[in-house]
Amino acid sequence: MSTHGWHAEASEILRVGDGFRLSDVDPDGAPGYDGDKHSAAKDLSTRVHDLDDLQERLWAQSRTGDAQDAVLLVLQAMDSAGKGGIVRHVVGGVDPQGVELAAFKAPTDEERAHDFLWRVEKRLPAPGFIGVFDRSHYEDVLIAKVRSLADAAEIERRYDAINAFEARVAASGTRIVKVMLHISPDEQKERLMERLDRPDKHWKYNPGDVDERMLWPAYMDAYQTVFDRTSTDAAPWHVVPANRKWYARLAVQELLLTALQDIEPQWPAADFDVDAERARLAAS
Amino acid sequence: MSTHGWHAEASEILRVGDGFRLSDVDPDGAPGYDGDKHSAAKDLSTRVHDLDDLQERLWAQSRTGDAQDAVLLVLQAMDSAGKGGIVRHVVGGVDPQGVELAAFKAPTDEERAHDFLWRVEKRLPAPGFIGVFDRSHYEDVLIAKVRSLADAAEIERRYDAINAFEARVAASGTRIVKVMLHISPDEQKERLMERLDRPDKHWKYNPGDVDERMLWPAYMDAYQTVFDRTSTDAAPWHVVPANRKWYARLAVQELLLTALQDIEPQWPAADFDVDAERARLAAS
Repeated sequence: MSTHGWHAEASEILRVGDGFRLSDVDPDGAPGYDGDKHSAAKDLSTRVHDLDDLQERLWAQSRTGDAQDAVLLVLQAMDSAGKGGIVRHVVGGVDPQGVELAAFKAPTDEERAHDFLWRVEKRLPAPGFIGVFDRSHYEDVLIAKVRSLADAAEIERRYDAINAFEARVAASGTRIVKVMLHISPDEQKERLMERLDRPDKHWKYNPGDVDERMLWPAYMDAYQTVFDRTSTDAAPWHVVPANRKWYARLAVQELLLTALQDIEPQWPAADFDVDAERARLAAS
Repeated sequence: MSTHGWHAEASEILRVGDGFRLSDVDPDGAPGYDGDKHSAAKDLSTRVHDLDDLQERLWAQSRTGDAQDAVLLVLQAMDSAGKGGIVRHVVGGVDPQGVELAAFKAPTDEERAHDFLWRVEKRLPAPGFIGVFDRSHYEDVLIAKVRSLADAAEIERRYDAINAFEARVAASGTRIVKVMLHISPDEQKERLMERLDRPDKHWKYNPGDVDERMLWPAYMDAYQTVFDRTSTDAAPWHVVPANRKWYARLAVQELLLTALQDIEPQWPAADFDVDAERARLAAS
């Protein structure tokens, strides 16, 4: 829905389709949105209520009847691109009772002993929920590829395994919204430097982030392959320019709204006799 | 901390101490707070930032170093007393990345095959988190007692088991904040009737709620015994008058703030050489 400052559907304009090249995306851009930081803050807070309302309907319809719908937001990005801000400012506007958040770190020994999708399966959102993956199974074809944590044949196998997995999840009623937040190397440098300059941000800084940063071109190649191999109709990718935080937040909010509007969740009808219950309650 | 409209510590004035009688509590009251619905809304939104800031510090200090602190909010109440509103409006103001929410429903067959604390143990918050129990192990001495789901000897055993369990959890670094939201039967009737009057609220209505409502005095007796047996220094109970939603929300927010202030979480010092990292980043 093109409302407020949007003149195009974020879900269309940001979608990874045939011939997509990551290198063509301007991380400073704000595609589809006519507005600035100021209008974006207003739009974000207006639309947060729409999102909250839609999520409540989604939850309500899952409580009674057969509705199996859920939404899964998959967030991938280089360090400091703003995943945390999306969770705080976009997802944070939704009733926490309707959100299932999973942050995937380096796998534990137990997780490593299983197939890479084992731990992911366990964190899929139940019907009625918005699930959020902060990093995901895509780490297993990103850092795993760049750092050669698995051999080439295994990485190849994983793209197909991911597509089969996501097709099944989508068929079970979960709308999958995959997002890569795209920042530039210069923007990352500024953000990491700020963490070093502020003692209250030191805890967010990890020397390993600079090690990964030095592999930037290899990561961009790995992302390009991810987009080529796993942007499907059932689970398309969206690349969101993220040098401007206000745009990235607004765009992800819009993508979530579109997924929920597509479900059109309805308040369920009473599965009891309303008048009889009114009488029983009045007499109690 | 007595700030804003508070003239007494909520954690003191609402605490269940020796000689406490639930029947003495006025569900319409607003103990310790000089203000009305309007000032409460302002105080709530001001203090939400303090809560968010303290939680971020709690999280940060858990990331490095040995800090094991966490907070666990246990919410118990009769139906429609406002647990959901607390989660949405108080907990919802905190970064979702710092919250672990567990809603305990009727136990599954697997859960029933274990001791009643088995499923609870699994949902305890990790260091750095605010955990929220929407219902809890107290159902096993409330509905279980009122509905005779366990025999008297087993119910007796459970009070001691709960105290030992909570003492261990507290000793591991988790501040336990136990809250009963206290409404009157008339207020409940109004709220349930509203759910019947509004089609968009029908899904929240459960005919079983009226069955439980008819056992109100037995529930109040069971709560009184819970308070007598399980309000300990390690994990005290607080009874929060809840006929006025604005008061209940403000009071629970204050209880959480007090728990976090008591921890005094600190931004952790860098465990790396800041200047060396600055140089390495600049060169990257």
